[in-house]
Amino acid sequence: MQAVINLQYLDMEKIEHIGIAVNSIKSAGNVYERLLGTSIYKTEEVTSENVLTAFLQCGPNKIELLEATSEDSPIAKFIAKKGEGIHHIAFEVSDIRAEMQRLKNEGFVLLNEEPKRGADNKLVCFVHPKGTNGVLVELCESVDF
Amino acid sequence: MQAVINLQYLDMEKIEHIGIAVNSIKSAGNVYERLLGTSIYKTEEVTSENVLTAFLQCGPNKIELLEATSEDSPIAKFIAKKGEGIHHIAFEVSDIRAEMQRLKNEGFVLLNEEPKRGADNKLVCFVHPKGTNGVLVELCESVDF
Repeated sequence: MQAVINLQYLDMEKIEHIGIAVNSIKSAGNVYERLLGTSIYKTEEVTSENVLTAFLQCGPNKIELLEATSEDSPIAKFIAKKGEGIHHIAFEVSDIRAEMQRLKNEGFVLLNEEPKRGADNKLVCFVHPKGTNGVLVELCESVDF
Repeated sequence: MQAVINLQYLDMEKIEHIGIAVNSIKSAGNVYERLLGTSIYKTEEVTSENVLTAFLQCGPNKIELLEATSEDSPIAKFIAKKGEGIHHIAFEVSDIRAEMQRLKNEGFVLLNEEPKRGADNKLVCFVHPKGTNGVLVELCESVDF
């Protein structure tokens, strides 16, 4: 009988960012710049999600502000239902496809079967919040587009 | 006229943890252990807040699961109103009193005027979410009690 060494694949490296749904990046950006004592280093529109994003660095982590650019944006729907507030947690992974497979094997439900392009040079995938105690979890892998 | 060098005090070092309100740490703990591929390293009751907490490490950051231990716990009220989900973001600071003063000077409203003892060997202070786009922000400083 041969011994099998089972090296568990583990890839949740850190909280890459926290996404916060806001009515106005101009207004909320000023608030978060004062809160964190730093300036927004990037704003970027993600047309596929109908959102405008703005990023602030906080040590190894980021805050991502999200403003809807149309009424059918997921962010507009979130704010209509819950008001402004934390929208998702994103974890950095080095191999998003492997991590998606690991989570599927663990019984988590993914909201997209293939990684999609997100803001800030990332490939992203979302995990269904029903399986994570109401928390929308994002996986993101840095890539050069 | 004497030149005054104004060194801005800046202390938001990283996201220390994300607090997630859950109905049951036993159940949610299992979910987050599978999600993050790591075990809960500590559970601790904070009697002043009527919560049971459990912590998981993720690189430089942590996930804190929060379960109410009585009906008048802030976590019970949060879940009754919004359901399970992300409850707060905690930022690590090295000098909580100085950071509280900086935020007051910036116009933020603090929920406690003096730092109070939190879980995981921290002094903590909360910032009113009305001034932070619906996000409950915690400052926390590591201390040896």
